[in-house]
Amino acid sequence: MKIEIISPGKIKNDFISAGVQEYTKRLQKFVKITFKDIGSSHSVDPRIYVEEESKKLLKYIGTRKFTLLDVNGVEMNTQEFSAFMKRELESKGEIFFVIGGIYGVSEEIKNLASSKLSLSRMTFTHSLTFLLLVEQIYRSMKIISGQPYDH
Amino acid sequence: MKIEIISPGKIKNDFISAGVQEYTKRLQKFVKITFKDIGSSHSVDPRIYVEEESKKLLKYIGTRKFTLLDVNGVEMNTQEFSAFMKRELESKGEIFFVIGGIYGVSEEIKNLASSKLSLSRMTFTHSLTFLLLVEQIYRSMKIISGQPYDH
Repeated sequence: MKIEIISPGKIKNDFISAGVQEYTKRLQKFVKITFKDIGSSHSVDPRIYVEEESKKLLKYIGTRKFTLLDVNGVEMNTQEFSAFMKRELESKGEIFFVIGGIYGVSEEIKNLASSKLSLSRMTFTHSLTFLLLVEQIYRSMKIISGQPYDH
Repeated sequence: MKIEIISPGKIKNDFISAGVQEYTKRLQKFVKITFKDIGSSHSVDPRIYVEEESKKLLKYIGTRKFTLLDVNGVEMNTQEFSAFMKRELESKGEIFFVIGGIYGVSEEIKNLASSKLSLSRMTFTHSLTFLLLVEQIYRSMKIISGQPYDH
């Protein structure tokens, strides 16, 4: 069972990197989790920025099915997310998440996503979204394995 | 203009403390923000735990109006939250947020809250809720003052 999260650009805040590392470490006993930074655009034009990053994301994704993190996606509570994770891991053996860059992703990527997940109606930074996703994955794995959450 | 956030118990993760400190520092030029830890319960019984913490919260709140962070509260997007912040700060000069402890708060506190805010349908830890709230407050202050968000 494995989980992969891909995204353009590095995590921007040290405290968030520390948090992602913390949950990644805790997740090791449940699932193999990997991160892939496909590199961010350097364009000053947001339109070109999104286009460049989306092209690189598409190239990396290939024909794989993926779940896109999208503020307008489906909101799930933690129980529903955990049921979603269980279903995906049991049927496919892996889950592949895509987090857009600071200006989001192209319409093409939105249309290609097999599911779109919204962590909140609020807009969080790309880096914070990363942390929230990893924490919810950890929480789900604890629920799936019937263990109480450790704060 | 001031913002106060009260909560029982300390922030449990160093990386979250670092994040809260980071946004608090950035917020200084916009608003006075203070935190009050009213102390957590040590009971092993969740029912007594909530009761003890809620009693301390109520004592500190007194007759002040407050916004409770509650997973079942109203979800706002960032623009709506920023409009809410602006309205509250302009009409009352202050906003008073209450974050429950790890087992939440009593029904009495839920009923007394003048508004209930949900950051997500997902359940996050008490500490992570703190970080998300402070980040969204910072984001709102940037929107209210017409400045672009800095990641």
